[in-house]
Amino acid sequence: MPFSNEFMDNPHADRVRHVARLSKAKARQRSGLFLVEGPQSVRELVTYEPQLVKDLYIQAHADYQDAQDEGEAASEVVTRILEHPHIRDMYVHYVSPEVMMQMSQDAQGIVAVADLGRMKSNSSDLAAMVQKRQENEPIRLAAFWEIRDPGNAGTVIRAADAAGCDAVIFVGNCVDASNPKVVRSTVGSLFHIPLIRMATDTFFTTMKDAAINVTAADVHGVEGQQSESLPELVNSESLGKDSMAVLFGNEARGLSDDILRRCQKIVYIPMYGKAESLNLATSAAIMLHTLAMSSHVGRI
Amino acid sequence: MPFSNEFMDNPHADRVRHVARLSKAKARQRSGLFLVEGPQSVRELVTYEPQLVKDLYIQAHADYQDAQDEGEAASEVVTRILEHPHIRDMYVHYVSPEVMMQMSQDAQGIVAVADLGRMKSNSSDLAAMVQKRQENEPIRLAAFWEIRDPGNAGTVIRAADAAGCDAVIFVGNCVDASNPKVVRSTVGSLFHIPLIRMATDTFFTTMKDAAINVTAADVHGVEGQQSESLPELVNSESLGKDSMAVLFGNEARGLSDDILRRCQKIVYIPMYGKAESLNLATSAAIMLHTLAMSSHVGRI
Repeated sequence: MPFSNEFMDNPHADRVRHVARLSKAKARQRSGLFLVEGPQSVRELVTYEPQLVKDLYIQAHADYQDAQDEGEAASEVVTRILEHPHIRDMYVHYVSPEVMMQMSQDAQGIVAVADLGRMKSNSSDLAAMVQKRQENEPIRLAAFWEIRDPGNAGTVIRAADAAGCDAVIFVGNCVDASNPKVVRSTVGSLFHIPLIRMATDTFFTTMKDAAINVTAADVHGVEGQQSESLPELVNSESLGKDSMAVLFGNEARGLSDDILRRCQKIVYIPMYGKAESLNLATSAAIMLHTLAMSSHVGRI
Repeated sequence: MPFSNEFMDNPHADRVRHVARLSKAKARQRSGLFLVEGPQSVRELVTYEPQLVKDLYIQAHADYQDAQDEGEAASEVVTRILEHPHIRDMYVHYVSPEVMMQMSQDAQGIVAVADLGRMKSNSSDLAAMVQKRQENEPIRLAAFWEIRDPGNAGTVIRAADAAGCDAVIFVGNCVDASNPKVVRSTVGSLFHIPLIRMATDTFFTTMKDAAINVTAADVHGVEGQQSESLPELVNSESLGKDSMAVLFGNEARGLSDDILRRCQKIVYIPMYGKAESLNLATSAAIMLHTLAMSSHVGRI
């Protein structure tokens, strides 16, 4: 791996400031770069999307400077990442704890700077995915309309990954997925599953053209279309055969009636106790995983 | 409702300091009181556990002092709480925004001080619950071993409530459930469902005596006992007839082998994508809700 010769120990260096600034949306837009923090996220980045990595910054052992050796990471889990074959082609920089702290307070010994432009999936990727798919292998998408909370956004990407969805779609005015809090909350799932952004109208026309039914997650339904319960949906004949996108609403406002009218089905999670509702991330995990389990096992 | 005559506008008053201090464990132990913050939590407290309420503090309209009227809450949702018939017997105090801010930064216009001693459920409550139960109405418990994160603890109590569990059991050295962050994260579910604390040994002997099977949530299983997948468990004959406690492990360490050996079954949530795992709160929600849906609908 092409190590940088220079051990970075000046927390005020330009390069350190440039990395730290990637926590701001403006700096990410201007530079086309984003931050990946912590061993788990960086490991998944290095494993699944190595071509995105511009630079890796590793916190060195406290005695690194004295030892003058090639460099040793401060923690074992980071050392294991450095043994990955993909690392060979990456720029690895050893930095002091002060420099690391300046770059990111959530690094736990390792951060990567990654290329935003090369990661962006778009609707043509989805079209390609639809074309490649076999007839008896339906597509499963998790779509989120105007999701705004970074922690929620990361958690639902992870849930969609765990449920084996083919892609996540952020519909309309959603949170910026390169926000470090989103990246951290996905715990690497951001590099497992394509994330596609679409305007609301584009989403519905794309789904229609690809013959993917849109099922809205909503308790109340809308005039002319009742919401059915998740167990009913799971018991329905077509499930498992048809391609399907499950569309979840905004954390506070849910889905508008206008959006609900454009969906083929509306489904809700039955509540059995006295709780009125579950939050978005929990609802998405229950719904996506229930659908995944039921189509993998026939009936669960 | 017995209003306090005095409008509280001195943020340095003794009473204000006493309320604010309830964010600290020591102050809660000494006083036997705890804080319930925000309209949703207070509404559920007033509705389901009114006997716990010692005092209600409502943030008054900015013009309250000038108007000299009986008192008007600063928000509509708080006003609706004040219309609840249970409010009649409660001590309601109107306070200035400064006083409210001093008492709690998560009040959103309303906090209650509640009686900790009267809330504590214990194992004799569970025994009573077991005795009252009919034969064809099995008991469902959600048990958490050494759960430590307050946000997680609150979220899993809410998930257990939503899944219609009969009680939540905190096993071993768990977080203090009167911690304000736990209370807030339950969004009122703390007042819907009994929460019982038990030492690890007591838990297993209590379950055995009550003929409640313990199913551990664990991916790996233990020598001599493999983990079966959640869909397999849901398809098994006995599910829905037998009483059952699902036991979840600590956020970082899971369940020890020693604990796993004492459980009747071990079950895991299958992962379909590239994600390695889900966090505790998400796993608990998926597992508890899947079991609930399957026993309510026969097979889902």
